[in-house]
Amino acid sequence: MIKINTLGAILFSALTINSFAQSDEKVLRELFTEALENQQSYKWLGELCAIGPRLAGSTGAQEAVEWGFQTMSKMDFDTVYLQEISVPHWVRGAEKATWEGKATSFPYPLAVTSLGGSVSTPPGGLVARVVEVGDYNELDSLGKLGKLQDVIVFYNYPMKQHFIKTFHAYSDAVKYRWMGAVRASEYGAKAVVIRSLTLRTDDFPHTGSMTYEGAEKKIPAGAISTIAADNLSRMLRNDPQGKLRLVLESQDFGRTVSYNVIADKFGAEYPEEIMLMGGHLDSWDLAEGAHDDGAGCVHAMGAADLLMKRKSPLKRTLRVVLYMNEEFGLDGARMYAKATEEQDHVIAIESDAGGYIPRGFSFDTDSVNLLKIQRFQPLFVPYGLFEFIPGGSGADVGQIRGKNMVLGGLRPESQRYFDVHHAATDVYGAVHPRELEFGTAAMAGLIYLLDKYDIPSRPRKN
Amino acid sequence: MIKINTLGAILFSALTINSFAQSDEKVLRELFTEALENQQSYKWLGELCAIGPRLAGSTGAQEAVEWGFQTMSKMDFDTVYLQEISVPHWVRGAEKATWEGKATSFPYPLAVTSLGGSVSTPPGGLVARVVEVGDYNELDSLGKLGKLQDVIVFYNYPMKQHFIKTFHAYSDAVKYRWMGAVRASEYGAKAVVIRSLTLRTDDFPHTGSMTYEGAEKKIPAGAISTIAADNLSRMLRNDPQGKLRLVLESQDFGRTVSYNVIADKFGAEYPEEIMLMGGHLDSWDLAEGAHDDGAGCVHAMGAADLLMKRKSPLKRTLRVVLYMNEEFGLDGARMYAKATEEQDHVIAIESDAGGYIPRGFSFDTDSVNLLKIQRFQPLFVPYGLFEFIPGGSGADVGQIRGKNMVLGGLRPESQRYFDVHHAATDVYGAVHPRELEFGTAAMAGLIYLLDKYDIPSRPRKN
Repeated sequence: MIKINTLGAILFSALTINSFAQSDEKVLRELFTEALENQQSYKWLGELCAIGPRLAGSTGAQEAVEWGFQTMSKMDFDTVYLQEISVPHWVRGAEKATWEGKATSFPYPLAVTSLGGSVSTPPGGLVARVVEVGDYNELDSLGKLGKLQDVIVFYNYPMKQHFIKTFHAYSDAVKYRWMGAVRASEYGAKAVVIRSLTLRTDDFPHTGSMTYEGAEKKIPAGAISTIAADNLSRMLRNDPQGKLRLVLESQDFGRTVSYNVIADKFGAEYPEEIMLMGGHLDSWDLAEGAHDDGAGCVHAMGAADLLMKRKSPLKRTLRVVLYMNEEFGLDGARMYAKATEEQDHVIAIESDAGGYIPRGFSFDTDSVNLLKIQRFQPLFVPYGLFEFIPGGSGADVGQIRGKNMVLGGLRPESQRYFDVHHAATDVYGAVHPRELEFGTAAMAGLIYLLDKYDIPSRPRKN
Repeated sequence: MIKINTLGAILFSALTINSFAQSDEKVLRELFTEALENQQSYKWLGELCAIGPRLAGSTGAQEAVEWGFQTMSKMDFDTVYLQEISVPHWVRGAEKATWEGKATSFPYPLAVTSLGGSVSTPPGGLVARVVEVGDYNELDSLGKLGKLQDVIVFYNYPMKQHFIKTFHAYSDAVKYRWMGAVRASEYGAKAVVIRSLTLRTDDFPHTGSMTYEGAEKKIPAGAISTIAADNLSRMLRNDPQGKLRLVLESQDFGRTVSYNVIADKFGAEYPEEIMLMGGHLDSWDLAEGAHDDGAGCVHAMGAADLLMKRKSPLKRTLRVVLYMNEEFGLDGARMYAKATEEQDHVIAIESDAGGYIPRGFSFDTDSVNLLKIQRFQPLFVPYGLFEFIPGGSGADVGQIRGKNMVLGGLRPESQRYFDVHHAATDVYGAVHPRELEFGTAAMAGLIYLLDKYDIPSRPRKN
């Protein structure tokens, strides 16, 4: 029985693929051709990046909201609107780290940046001995011996090169950025610095979110570049009594108002069924957020543009959401999910893993939907997308709760992503026009197929 | 019958894959881990690029030969040797192109470079009207009307964005670089310039090989950047009588001596059966040839290093060939193929498509071998290599003629390749360490499997 069923499934699958092969192959070919020839997403990304950094609460973020609203208003959407949200307003100040020990005859500079939301060091900075720890086990051992009192804890846990997908290396290491200050403050540390979360050896520090949840005392937290981390580690071995002078200034202005930008093209047959594509408008404040997540915004906008320019309209409503403040609290995503919980989201696809050449999609859905979607994979292989796998969607669309829905995430090649992630290197020039446009076309193609084949299914009159 | 056969094949295939899955998965995992953690290929590439440009016949090429010989002599090979060849010795001189027309009030500079082997312009350069042609049809139409006499022909044929793999766009456009001078000289043109072969809009001219074969008169040939091509085209429309002043100086020193660098690790069981991995040591003279083809050299060297460091020796002989002068006449490849025609090459894998993240391999072999190799594909998918397709191998290993052999080519992601190809942008910094090492490990993994499973087959005593 198993053999026959397998055979049946294979034959059915082959027939089904053939049945959609010709017309759907043609549509995908058109979408990719249009994207590669016009490079509309890449042009939009240039405009967005020209605004500069877009940390939630900043004027850059506000300009980005206006840009998103104006740009999508010129497209073929039926409606474009803003959704008000509350976001933090934290502003980075002077930042400096210098090693003052016998290993150098002068204060040796180490490239440093504050983690997002870090409290400020006192005026003039703080000076303290540094204790390097490899991981939390070592932190606990030293902390329980009282050796971390009044020191700067230096978490030197690297992203591990052996991981194949760099996001796995990130997941493995990010706990030191997120919880490092809380954990070190328990043992009386004055501040923490972490090794930047990148797989490159270079001199760019990488910022990112952190928490003080559960901390009795908030201590400043920064990241130093991987070169600085290697240097600091070496100098510490030579001179364990050397000190680090740390200036991490910032100001917390409480909360302010910002917006998600939302655009709808109503479906021709089932307008109440929403197919969402999204990215986040905000970025960290060290660069232009070209990959994170300007790329995701223009992927969604570009894919919508390709689909709306086709002659035959989509059956379901196409929605683009440019989320505000993914980086610093998910405020936009939470507000959006709450405000739309009565709406029927059938699909929500996020692009928030960079503008690199796409290798596929991951899907958070049930196995019936997944199998249906995986049947489309051969249509995408000619364009280099071969991974149609179960997995997470994205931090923003992942907030949406719905029954029988398809949450998905575009999966670009990940090798270069953490070279630029949350660092000064995340600029327009780091995005390749063709690689970006492959992502746009892939998202458009996926939405086209899901709409055409009514995936996930909903009750129909016929 | 067909159904049952299909089922049988599927079940057999599944069983076979399972039978090698555990041990072979483990070996591949080890090879990729070692490559990603040690990054030996990337370190070697840094040394090779530090030499500078390595055009055949240049001192840089000679230094590269010495570097290859010395470096491989320190590895675990049984023998390392040089194979003498004859190569051209052509040296680029001053290069300048300026538009002198009414559209600008001053000579407007256009970024230009000579094609490889171009004859020199006369002392002081030449000045002539420019006629732009889109393709050879237009050339012939205008030429037959006598409109190309004494002009500079400007081939403004772009690489087409709609191609998915950029090598196809290159194949489509490269005929204007290769034959443009010959074709234009037939109509009395004084010189030619082509639009550079890249998909980017930037200001770097791209050189490359050309021919004078069949030309009664050799005329100078250059490439201008894509920005210069767009500017020249626009200025020509405004002012068809404007002139281009073209300085393309070079010297041809005839031929000189150079070398292929060859290293062998004798096989433990079948030393007469040769598994070759190769890249080319020479580069164009505008940059470091990091992707083209420093990457290929260190792919082959790094893969050999990984394989020779394993405890169990390979059954067949492993050979690395660093070819000289792929770019400017294939001299090394031709000499190698001729000198070794009595040897039994079972496998020859080339890496000459850049150091970008690999997407698979193409194979020039019979269908029996191809099907056997394609069964390995699932082992590589976790590392992002999914294409195991029939296709070309490479210009160098493609010279080898043998019976029942596997010629193969590593196929990296191609989107960024022509950004740097034959241009000043092909430098070490354009190569990503992890992306490069994926190629090294993939080549090692493929050779490991072909050796273990005796592909292609040879008569055995048992």
